[in-house]
Amino acid sequence: MTRPMNVLQDFKQGGPLDLYRGRARFDWKALKLALETPEVVDYQNQLYAELQRHEEYQAEGLPSASFDEQRRRACRQSLTYKSIELLSIGYQLQNLKFPFMATTVMMQLAPASTIKFNVAHTLFTDAIRTLGTGRHAHFLQQAEEGVISGCYCLTEIAHGSNVKAMRTSAVFDKDKQCFVLNSEGFEAAKCWAGGLGQVATHAIVYAQLRSKQQLHGLHCFVVPIRDPRTLLPFPGLLVGDMGEKIGLNGIDNGFVLFQNYEIPKENLLNKLGDVTEQGDYVTPFKDPSKRHGAALGALSGGRVVITGICAAYGVKALTIAVRYAAVRKQFGPSEQGPEVPILEYQTHFSVDSALGHNKERLPELGAELHAISSASKPLAGWSMRDAIQECREACGGHGYLKVAGLGDIRNDHDANMTYEGENHVLIQQTSNWLLKFWPLVERQQPIATPLRSADFLSRGLEILRGARIKARTVAELCEPDAIIPIYQWLVCHLLQTTHDKLAAEGAKGAFWGRNNCQVFRAKSLGVAFIQHFVLQVMLEKIEQQSDAEIRAVLRQLFSLQALFWLEKLHMATIYQGGLAQGGATATLIQDAVLELCAQLKDQAVALVDAVAPPDFVLNSPLGASDGQVYKHLQAALLSAPFALSRPAWWQDIATWKSKL
Amino acid sequence: MTRPMNVLQDFKQGGPLDLYRGRARFDWKALKLALETPEVVDYQNQLYAELQRHEEYQAEGLPSASFDEQRRRACRQSLTYKSIELLSIGYQLQNLKFPFMATTVMMQLAPASTIKFNVAHTLFTDAIRTLGTGRHAHFLQQAEEGVISGCYCLTEIAHGSNVKAMRTSAVFDKDKQCFVLNSEGFEAAKCWAGGLGQVATHAIVYAQLRSKQQLHGLHCFVVPIRDPRTLLPFPGLLVGDMGEKIGLNGIDNGFVLFQNYEIPKENLLNKLGDVTEQGDYVTPFKDPSKRHGAALGALSGGRVVITGICAAYGVKALTIAVRYAAVRKQFGPSEQGPEVPILEYQTHFSVDSALGHNKERLPELGAELHAISSASKPLAGWSMRDAIQECREACGGHGYLKVAGLGDIRNDHDANMTYEGENHVLIQQTSNWLLKFWPLVERQQPIATPLRSADFLSRGLEILRGARIKARTVAELCEPDAIIPIYQWLVCHLLQTTHDKLAAEGAKGAFWGRNNCQVFRAKSLGVAFIQHFVLQVMLEKIEQQSDAEIRAVLRQLFSLQALFWLEKLHMATIYQGGLAQGGATATLIQDAVLELCAQLKDQAVALVDAVAPPDFVLNSPLGASDGQVYKHLQAALLSAPFALSRPAWWQDIATWKSKL
Ligand SMILES: Cc1cc2nc3c(=O)[nH]c(=O)nc-3n(C[C@H](O)[C@H](O)[C@H](O)COP(=O)(O)OP(=O)(O)OC[C@H]3O[C@@H](n4cnc5c(N)ncnc54)[C@H](O)[C@@H]3O)c2cc1C
Ligand SMILES: Cc1cc2nc3c(=O)[nH]c(=O)nc-3n(C[C@H](O)[C@H](O)[C@H](O)COP(=O)(O)OP(=O)(O)OC[C@H]3O[C@@H](n4cnc5c(N)ncnc54)[C@H](O)[C@@H]3O)c2cc1C
Repeated sequence: MTRPMNVLQDFKQGGPLDLYRGRARFDWKALKLALETPEVVDYQNQLYAELQRHEEYQAEGLPSASFDEQRRRACRQSLTYKSIELLSIGYQLQNLKFPFMATTVMMQLAPASTIKFNVAHTLFTDAIRTLGTGRHAHFLQQAEEGVISGCYCLTEIAHGSNVKAMRTSAVFDKDKQCFVLNSEGFEAAKCWAGGLGQVATHAIVYAQLRSKQQLHGLHCFVVPIRDPRTLLPFPGLLVGDMGEKIGLNGIDNGFVLFQNYEIPKENLLNKLGDVTEQGDYVTPFKDPSKRHGAALGALSGGRVVITGICAAYGVKALTIAVRYAAVRKQFGPSEQGPEVPILEYQTHFSVDSALGHNKERLPELGAELHAISSASKPLAGWSMRDAIQECREACGGHGYLKVAGLGDIRNDHDANMTYEGENHVLIQQTSNWLLKFWPLVERQQPIATPLRSADFLSRGLEILRGARIKARTVAELCEPDAIIPIYQWLVCHLLQTTHDKLAAEGAKGAFWGRNNCQVFRAKSLGVAFIQHFVLQVMLEKIEQQSDAEIRAVLRQLFSLQALFWLEKLHMATIYQGGLAQGGATATLIQDAVLELCAQLKDQAVALVDAVAPPDFVLNSPLGASDGQVYKHLQAALLSAPFALSRPAWWQDIATWKSKL
Repeated sequence: MTRPMNVLQDFKQGGPLDLYRGRARFDWKALKLALETPEVVDYQNQLYAELQRHEEYQAEGLPSASFDEQRRRACRQSLTYKSIELLSIGYQLQNLKFPFMATTVMMQLAPASTIKFNVAHTLFTDAIRTLGTGRHAHFLQQAEEGVISGCYCLTEIAHGSNVKAMRTSAVFDKDKQCFVLNSEGFEAAKCWAGGLGQVATHAIVYAQLRSKQQLHGLHCFVVPIRDPRTLLPFPGLLVGDMGEKIGLNGIDNGFVLFQNYEIPKENLLNKLGDVTEQGDYVTPFKDPSKRHGAALGALSGGRVVITGICAAYGVKALTIAVRYAAVRKQFGPSEQGPEVPILEYQTHFSVDSALGHNKERLPELGAELHAISSASKPLAGWSMRDAIQECREACGGHGYLKVAGLGDIRNDHDANMTYEGENHVLIQQTSNWLLKFWPLVERQQPIATPLRSADFLSRGLEILRGARIKARTVAELCEPDAIIPIYQWLVCHLLQTTHDKLAAEGAKGAFWGRNNCQVFRAKSLGVAFIQHFVLQVMLEKIEQQSDAEIRAVLRQLFSLQALFWLEKLHMATIYQGGLAQGGATATLIQDAVLELCAQLKDQAVALVDAVAPPDFVLNSPLGASDGQVYKHLQAALLSAPFALSRPAWWQDIATWKSKL
């Protein structure tokens, strides 16, 4: 990078946000540069500028585009992404954080188009790269050139989370040296694949491989779907569109049914398993379940990205709500607001650092990363879901306007609960991983994982023994030295009680056993574990800050986040396990939350300034950086073509009236 | 009513829901008739049949109608409502419960059209009836005849909750014997009024009355807006449409700015205050704040209706999620589901009974009803918000499809948090009402309100003294005799601590004092109070049941609801106030919730059968009464016109591709 650093622009002065900006005890620019390196901030600003130049990304007016027009627009936007150099693989390799920053920026600007782009250009090609071999290089080449466009077909109509039960079959035909794909009726149709509905020319298809009458489990195939020149589907396929959704309508999620559909033998992605010309099955794996795990591994990275996407949505919603709250006057300042911002910054931190740390010890790292990503996506997903909703309600009636933007954020974000692993199902992966450590804890043996997320479990018995919350004042309780031990105790206690409950339920069989200890136990365990990890990572980041003011405000956010979660989610457990006795502790935690909110109220606008996207991305009259809420609202309402005109069908009313 | 009772139809047999239906320990028809009288159920069925006959109410296909078409459709639907005899005032007077049932049915079928209808035919006319006098009878007459169509303008762009700060002015002009309306700029424009955007001919406008240079506060005026023959606005007005919203897009919410707009003196609704021909102000009220309260009284009824609307939405969402969960097989039965149904039935009960009870002692009843409705709307609103979201997530990917219906329910329901009193603001009315009783509690004086919702406070000190949860087994804890005292203790404890905190914060002035004790105190107080009331009422209803099986299942729902709320919302308070010590109580509550969920799992489908709307109203492939989820899903997806066709703009992709 030789380009000179782009200077961060000051916000225009003289508006209603000046008051709160003046009260900030830190410099928002310094905070921005503390959260991201100057190089990344510079990249972000370049990307904003580049995207704003393209006509495709200009904000739409009202009324919203039709379903078909949304599709067309998303297609255009995702193809345009491909032409932007800042988004090219080559450029992004310069800095490991560029791809994350790019996704944040793109998701804040145009979520559906961005997901379309990522499925076609990352998910599709990553699967080929991870599971394919040299013979599949031409697919990568063609995808890179934009000649073909891929999608990813795992889910079926009747099975989603339960991947092993997928029923699409791929039978090897020795004579023709091909695989024959079949769907057992509509329930086995592949579905939901983004891009499949209207435009994909190729699909990664997960199917049960059979050869010589023998089943070998799920394998991946590259399957031609549409002729790239005509975009018409090939015979033997019934391909269609899933239609309208709650949000993300720019994505053409599709379904496909195979009827004796033949594909070349070579289209099997054969790194983990292959079929010889004779039809014999060969695999480097002895344990089929290991192969199965590896075949699905491609998804783990996606989850980390989604954690970041949740944060990106959250930032947008918070920017709108915090700025509006600072401008809107109703009796006096609302007191709901300040609780929310804190939900944000932590998740923002965790993503980077989970990846930044330690690249050796890959297999173990893989398992730990899987456990972390399987919990961080649900935590980020649910936290942001609630935060977005709080923001919507905090903006009152005007928050219910389409132009405010909060409805779209909520509706788009909603899908994050479900795809790349349904949240409730996913978080079980984390608790299962943790449960494996319990025998070591009991025997007081050392536990050391690559990212050190569970190392404190080595001291598990000690942590549990006679633990008590000792803080007696709000100030004492807000100290990291008081907070971190509480979370470590929570994880140890929930691990122990989940383990005990599992043992007690064992008689009902493993499936029912696990099922019966999810609510109040295993799920809370996964949540507490990831919260502890996020708080740890956040703390490390804070301690690295040299600016005392920034350290101070981040410390407040740290304490507020930690205590807010305790109050909202863990109070019962704290008393159940005896970490507190007597009411004083609960009161202390609540007092601390309220005091931190009060302290941060005047910092909220500046905090948001440090993470807010520019106005053209935010695209909300309530959240504009100049705070001219009513001016922008007036412009937005009056600019709609129908705002002041009589409806074309006005005479119908007269007709109906006269029929009364 | 001489019509013979309509027989309740059996569900078709031979589908995937048979299994769970067979497991039900009670007869869903008996339950339905236990929840509503036969006369009301009969009315409901007649109304369903009547609505299904009209072409206007047939379900739409995909893609969804354009914004303009949604408006047109809602207009048609709301005008058609007016022609249906079952919905006429005359017919509805036959049974006090008919209007509630009608609203439930209509809201489940077509929410936007129903709200449009209610604003024009209830809110508008009720305001005239309550605040007007004989000289306004012609407005009622014309509205009844459908010659004019009204709306209700209270909210302004810059002020909503803070009603007293409204800035629209109405100045009496003695020479012209008229009032002159003015808005001080866009911030004082009336806004959000349903119907104002495109069709209303008249509006109830709240404006600050001034005469002889003296301000007399907010008063209501009937203001002509559009010529009924042309639907064009009158000069002196800038009337417009608020544009798209998160949901309820069929409603034309509008804004209006007045510029020296003259209306006849007689258009002042003059029951609570009037101006003589000389311009002297006369009012029967000595205390202006009493007059202000009376002027806004019209809204109290609306809130009770909204509580019912929340329940109506909840029933729809639960029907979809429970039936889908019973059919969808993924690993094994999901364990998230069963927790949700319980959120429902209680709110269903509370509405009726709050009204059914006691019609004497009107002024006190008014205050109590205000306190109850100000808390029941937030409780129902927030509970259903969370329940709908749980339902959406519980349906996995297919729950994210537009046709599943859950997105629309959520987006439409969302407005309930905000209108007719923003939830957070509203619930303060309840805590304020309760706080007035504290001096009586301290002096152990009897408290007796018309609906007896707060009578137990008479024993407040006794309830607080040395209280402890005594139940030691799940069975003991599930007993109403164990549960009701817990809630009574919660209300007393929260009342005491809110009062104490308020006293402690008093130095900061009343406004900040109240503000600083909302979170964790006053808000929880309002919530616990209404929960106790709802549980009490539910219990009375249950004890009236003669069928033992129905009593049993309702008792289980009662216990689950009560304990679910304790677990989710009150655990900290329970330990804080010392009602429990040691972890066993928290564990017992959680165990009870899980055990009740397990018991109710097999009852869930039949419970839903008793409250579900018919398929044409539910209009969701996931929730159809025959349980043929995949068949309906296939039909829904394939019937969309674009499902299998290449997009019209397909060549654009080729063009863009070649530009790469
Ligand atoms: C916008 C969007 C885009 C998508 N894009 C793609 C794509 O490109 N390619 C693709 O292949 N798929 C895609 N999907 C599908 C997605 O991956 C699945 O929806 C997801 O895996 C969940 O599966 P499901 O829908 O079958 O839910 P289900 O597995 O049916 O889950 C339904 C409910 O049951 C519960 N449940 C299930 N099993 C258990 C258990 N063991 N314990 C407790 N609870 C359980 C879940 O928590 C959930 O609440 C997409 C989905 C969406 C919404
Ligand atoms: C679909 C829809 C239909 C509507 N129809 C009509 C209609 O027909 N006629 C009409 O007149 N109006 C209508 N309204 C407007 C509605 O009544 C207002 O939106 C509502 O009263 C809330 O006011 P507000 O929007 O100004 O919110 P605000 O009062 O600005 O509230 C914003 C936030 O501040 C918080 N807040 C405000 N004051 C306090 C306080 N004292 N303590 C704590 N928190 C506080 C609130 O909790 C909220 O989170 C409609 C609104 C919607 C969304």
